[in-house]
Amino acid sequence: MRDFSNDHSALALNTATLGHNVDGHGAGWSPERVIDACAARGFGAITYWRREIGDRAVDIGERTRAAGLSVSGLCRTPFLVGPLAPPTRAAVIDDFKASIDMTADLEATCLTIVVGGVIEGSHSLTESLKAVADIVAEMASRAQQGNVKLALEPLNPVYGGNRSCLVTVRDAVDLCDAIDNPAVTIAVDVYHVWWDLSLATELKRAGSARIAGYHLCDWLADTTDVLLDRGMMGDGVADLKAIREAVEGAGYSGFCEVEIFSANDWWKRDPGEVLDTCVERFRTVC
Amino acid sequence: MRDFSNDHSALALNTATLGHNVDGHGAGWSPERVIDACAARGFGAITYWRREIGDRAVDIGERTRAAGLSVSGLCRTPFLVGPLAPPTRAAVIDDFKASIDMTADLEATCLTIVVGGVIEGSHSLTESLKAVADIVAEMASRAQQGNVKLALEPLNPVYGGNRSCLVTVRDAVDLCDAIDNPAVTIAVDVYHVWWDLSLATELKRAGSARIAGYHLCDWLADTTDVLLDRGMMGDGVADLKAIREAVEGAGYSGFCEVEIFSANDWWKRDPGEVLDTCVERFRTVC
Repeated sequence: MRDFSNDHSALALNTATLGHNVDGHGAGWSPERVIDACAARGFGAITYWRREIGDRAVDIGERTRAAGLSVSGLCRTPFLVGPLAPPTRAAVIDDFKASIDMTADLEATCLTIVVGGVIEGSHSLTESLKAVADIVAEMASRAQQGNVKLALEPLNPVYGGNRSCLVTVRDAVDLCDAIDNPAVTIAVDVYHVWWDLSLATELKRAGSARIAGYHLCDWLADTTDVLLDRGMMGDGVADLKAIREAVEGAGYSGFCEVEIFSANDWWKRDPGEVLDTCVERFRTVC
Repeated sequence: MRDFSNDHSALALNTATLGHNVDGHGAGWSPERVIDACAARGFGAITYWRREIGDRAVDIGERTRAAGLSVSGLCRTPFLVGPLAPPTRAAVIDDFKASIDMTADLEATCLTIVVGGVIEGSHSLTESLKAVADIVAEMASRAQQGNVKLALEPLNPVYGGNRSCLVTVRDAVDLCDAIDNPAVTIAVDVYHVWWDLSLATELKRAGSARIAGYHLCDWLADTTDVLLDRGMMGDGVADLKAIREAVEGAGYSGFCEVEIFSANDWWKRDPGEVLDTCVERFRTVC
């Protein structure tokens, strides 16, 4: 396992950690200001959200690299199925294509997919996952052409109804197997997998080539909101070292990306303090 | 698979469905009134909560059976570990013993165990589950003597931090294997397992002798509260037939117990309407 106690060059920032994405929360920092703040603190990479990029993908990608950082990812495709997906399959595909093209322009490592919830009226996780597989398979060759990894992110089962019918790494590996395209991979997020004692086994089954990202935060024992009350690493109950051991035991050696949605705590703090805390916790408890 | 379309004698009521357990909610019906209402509608059994029983366990058990119903279970032991458990191990054991004795006096089929969350400061689901195993193993012989099945109930991973470090049927089977006492079994609840595509496999591994209960409700796609916003069967996204097929495929042939915590919907309705709806949904969608 890598030793981060004196080296945090593997640390990446997901800009959601600075609270960009809810009106009235967050610093409202420009990508340039985030790049400078991360570079000054020795972060290794940044993952952006599409809303921050607009038509500036090539420029922002270049600026990030010019500051000595990588672009670790882009969030994200539309929901592909379920109650929150665009109204038609054609609309899903159009927006999926736009997100792939933006990822390619950014030269980001991967594009995150949050697949969407159970299809209305289907009462079936299995049928919903088949529809997901169908759409992702159709998009895989475009992703390959753009040198983009599609990262299927299994979400905590609490989101199964509306945000993600993909709820375990096990099911994500099965989905990769079914699609069988090297562009289709998995993102592992502590918030979503911390409870899963089969994690190491399933990640070994995935193999290193199919793990495109590792996301850090913590699960607060008395969480008040499953969407916007994630904890800073070390403040919750997740076994962060054991989870990273599982991820690295499967061969992953990429960035560790802090992604903390925290409307009432970290998003209210000074962004510089948040970034400093990420570095300190990464070196000590991750 | 059993056909319930013209026979709901396998239907059990968990009294929580009538909203007993939150101040200001629920009918406040006595056990006698619940018994009469269930008997009139052809329910097969009732599961009670300790707070309803007090020192009347023998009497309530007899009244239930005299009305032609079984006592399907008792809720529940104290939390065994984690932030919500009694302050000392001795206090846990004392209350655990009291709950076993009450179950024996009721002549209920099983006693539900909600094991409690991750032990504070441990950051370890695994260590917490070991402590659970230690306590349950110590209680197993007393349960056997009282002809009581202890039913370990894995809870949805959303409760992993504070209410249950036992979050999958897989881990529950492993816990049963580790304790290795025939009194130690599993309860399967739709709310907690609906998302788990390994359910059928894991329940087969458990075997029919280790499945002591099956609980019905539904997972609402846009659930507003993970504690008190459970759905009536048919109103959510769970594949109820497939889940029952998994449970019965493992050999289970016992009661199907409706347990719906619903502070803002079902608990506000007339209890007779709630019971009628349980019967109708049980015959049509379960």
